[in-house]
Amino acid sequence: MSFEALNETMKKSWEIILGENLLLKEVNAGNADRRLYALYLIQTFFYTSHNAKNQALVALNIKGHDSPSIQYMKYCFKQSLEETGHEMMAYHDLKRMGYEIPMEKLTSPLPETEAFIAYLYKVSLTGNPLRSLGYAFWAEDSYRFFGDIMTTAIKNMGLSKDMLTFFNEHSALDVEHSQDVNAMIKKCAKTQQDWDDISDVLVMSLKMTGDMLNAVLVEYKKLLEGKSRYNGIL
Amino acid sequence: MSFEALNETMKKSWEIILGENLLLKEVNAGNADRRLYALYLIQTFFYTSHNAKNQALVALNIKGHDSPSIQYMKYCFKQSLEETGHEMMAYHDLKRMGYEIPMEKLTSPLPETEAFIAYLYKVSLTGNPLRSLGYAFWAEDSYRFFGDIMTTAIKNMGLSKDMLTFFNEHSALDVEHSQDVNAMIKKCAKTQQDWDDISDVLVMSLKMTGDMLNAVLVEYKKLLEGKSRYNGIL
Amino acid sequence: MSFEALNETMKKSWEIILGENLLLKEVNAGNADRRLYALYLIQTFFYTSHNAKNQALVALNIKGHDSPSIQYMKYCFKQSLEETGHEMMAYHDLKRMGYEIPMEKLTSPLPETEAFIAYLYKVSLTGNPLRSLGYAFWAEDSYRFFGDIMTTAIKNMGLSKDMLTFFNEHSALDVEHSQDVNAMIKKCAKTQQDWDDISDVLVMSLKMTGDMLNAVLVEYKKLLEGKSRYNGIL
Amino acid sequence: MSFEALNETMKKSWEIILGENLLLKEVNAGNADRRLYALYLIQTFFYTSHNAKNQALVALNIKGHDSPSIQYMKYCFKQSLEETGHEMMAYHDLKRMGYEIPMEKLTSPLPETEAFIAYLYKVSLTGNPLRSLGYAFWAEDSYRFFGDIMTTAIKNMGLSKDMLTFFNEHSALDVEHSQDVNAMIKKCAKTQQDWDDISDVLVMSLKMTGDMLNAVLVEYKKLLEGKSRYNGIL
Repeated sequence: MSFEALNETMKKSWEIILGENLLLKEVNAGNADRRLYALYLIQTFFYTSHNAKNQALVALNIKGHDSPSIQYMKYCFKQSLEETGHEMMAYHDLKRMGYEIPMEKLTSPLPETEAFIAYLYKVSLTGNPLRSLGYAFWAEDSYRFFGDIMTTAIKNMGLSKDMLTFFNEHSALDVEHSQDVNAMIKKCAKTQQDWDDISDVLVMSLKMTGDMLNAVLVEYKKLLEGKSRYNGIL
Repeated sequence: MSFEALNETMKKSWEIILGENLLLKEVNAGNADRRLYALYLIQTFFYTSHNAKNQALVALNIKGHDSPSIQYMKYCFKQSLEETGHEMMAYHDLKRMGYEIPMEKLTSPLPETEAFIAYLYKVSLTGNPLRSLGYAFWAEDSYRFFGDIMTTAIKNMGLSKDMLTFFNEHSALDVEHSQDVNAMIKKCAKTQQDWDDISDVLVMSLKMTGDMLNAVLVEYKKLLEGKSRYNGIL
Repeated sequence: MSFEALNETMKKSWEIILGENLLLKEVNAGNADRRLYALYLIQTFFYTSHNAKNQALVALNIKGHDSPSIQYMKYCFKQSLEETGHEMMAYHDLKRMGYEIPMEKLTSPLPETEAFIAYLYKVSLTGNPLRSLGYAFWAEDSYRFFGDIMTTAIKNMGLSKDMLTFFNEHSALDVEHSQDVNAMIKKCAKTQQDWDDISDVLVMSLKMTGDMLNAVLVEYKKLLEGKSRYNGIL
Repeated sequence: MSFEALNETMKKSWEIILGENLLLKEVNAGNADRRLYALYLIQTFFYTSHNAKNQALVALNIKGHDSPSIQYMKYCFKQSLEETGHEMMAYHDLKRMGYEIPMEKLTSPLPETEAFIAYLYKVSLTGNPLRSLGYAFWAEDSYRFFGDIMTTAIKNMGLSKDMLTFFNEHSALDVEHSQDVNAMIKKCAKTQQDWDDISDVLVMSLKMTGDMLNAVLVEYKKLLEGKSRYNGIL
């Protein structure tokens, strides 16, 4: 495999989401209810709370003491360090939209979000340690796919810049981080199995992100019916 | 909530799978290729390998020393004891179909199967310890939903009884185990949150099983194209 | 190695404890203060709370699907099942001595007890899965070494039978369990490394038990000075 | 409690080690066999291999999203980042002493070293997240206690500077790191329980270091008799 193949795989995965995802269709169809964005931010708060932690766990799964192993461990801790606390951006974006949610009420991610979190922990802790790079590969390079739909949402929902700090901050970090991910893959991926493992996680973690977005729309409909776990806070 | 509501939720979740699942549609449409069943058995081998283990982990998440806590811990270990080694039924069913797969080649579950396994571990180890009962609730009572499609597969593919030991053994255990699960829920579920947590896991674990079945069909098509991870062993 | 060598190693380890342990010396010297026994029971409550759990974790460290692996997994879950809730015997023994300690105040094992618990978890989860049998080997056969000092303590402190349920119950289980441990070692230990690993854990877990007993005496002296974490509950 | 009390506790713990530790007595008595230092370096290789990892795990045990929680998480990842790969200093010090040990033969720490590692993981993952600072408190400030005995060893054994990189590097880092630890304790320790928990870990982890040093001397004697796990590599 190669970066070309990985990029092709990523592109196809995004095309499925951009073409079929129910939340994205709803936004493109013009639904301007900010609670769609708020529900997405709540899920973002949850999974982002775990990113620094599960990134660090990759180090526990690295057994070698050779130079690439040590460099990969350092990469993981560096990422963890940079991502620590980023869930609070989503939290403050919610706050600035008018949703002041006491932290002790933010205890229940959607099951699809929890499944996504669970998968990322398993990817970090078991199997080929390189494969967690498959998640980073698309996550650090998602703006060009996710940008248009965000632009539509921002316009329709009238979202101001201070409600978009999570999104903007991560878009800005993208370029540098994406280069780091690519450099690490280049340094560490030696065998076809390495590339396949990275590709598997790329596809699956992006698919689960899509499932999470679909679940946001389902939950939105429950919210309208007063049957959501988030009635009372949204 | 109540058992009635839980049963209603389970029924609805099954209806979605029975109505929309792509693998089930393929079987119902008459595809008689035994490799569909073999691919399913391989995934069954993988997730069943973890069931005794993740069931036991629930005990680590039980903090109390009161009588219901201790009884629930014992229930978990008893289940683990009974489920140990059941993955070998699936393995031997494969063997009797003519697929003699060296164990060291059985290393790669489909990503959807791995995500399912990851979710079950997270459910066991974190959050409300009762919620893992949501998985057991449907898994130990699935024959009545899954029976018809199996009958169709058995007939069309000409599967003999000795290729169905995993399926038949678990159908037979269903009645007793299902009663155990219900008794445990009755004893331990006290609050609405308990019932909601059990219900969340019921829905999500069944949905992920459906995703795994869908992935089996996708992999089958790759197999036909010679692009599957299982080309070479199937 | 052999059972003979393992028994010899166990005997030597016990001789060190019986000859040098400070708590045992104190009891043999005639200190009849029941709080010595109560402090020991509290530590017993703590580490016994973990025994069923860490025994089950061995199963996570067993990777094979062959018959000895599956039998060993079943052995582990069977032990877990039998040991669940045994910490409550120690708790009730304390109660019958007049120490009614609210469960929420039983949160702080001695550091030596915590280190012992930590070691048992590590032994279960990492390295040769057989090595946890080294702990069971001496723990299920300790009466003949520990019996005399208990007899002295019982006599001097005037302990009645209902304050000794943990001790008596486990002495009674010893014979059967010890046979199970030996049978499992016989079935599974194949290489010199297996025997060495079992022997290492035998020696270290017994030594840490001795350290815990020493720490009980140190804490007893703090208790007399009013400086113990257990002042207020003893 | 206070830093004064913590320092007093640390001083007392060191006095016990400096007064009673068998390895230190042996070195002070003039034993100039470099294998004493080599055995110590091997244990250092083992526990240092885990330091970056278990430091990162503290983050998994931090549940809050408040500013001190996030700062403490960042502190942990920063430490992990700095400590990654430091075990290789010990490895190269061994090499420069003439002990070229193939990495695949470095698989067996002494049981006392493994117990120490196990304790540090448990401290990181469970209980009060602050308590791991108790280990850092003395570890980052150990030169003034450990310096004299090292000077003696260096002189007697004729150790050259390039065999002392682990020791010298960490002595140099001490001042800065020690200030970081103190700053973090100052920021985060609010209650008496916090200080007590930190103090418990300070005492226990230092005691286990002493046990490890004692075990080095026991192993040295086995080495002379040809009965050590390290015969063949030393």
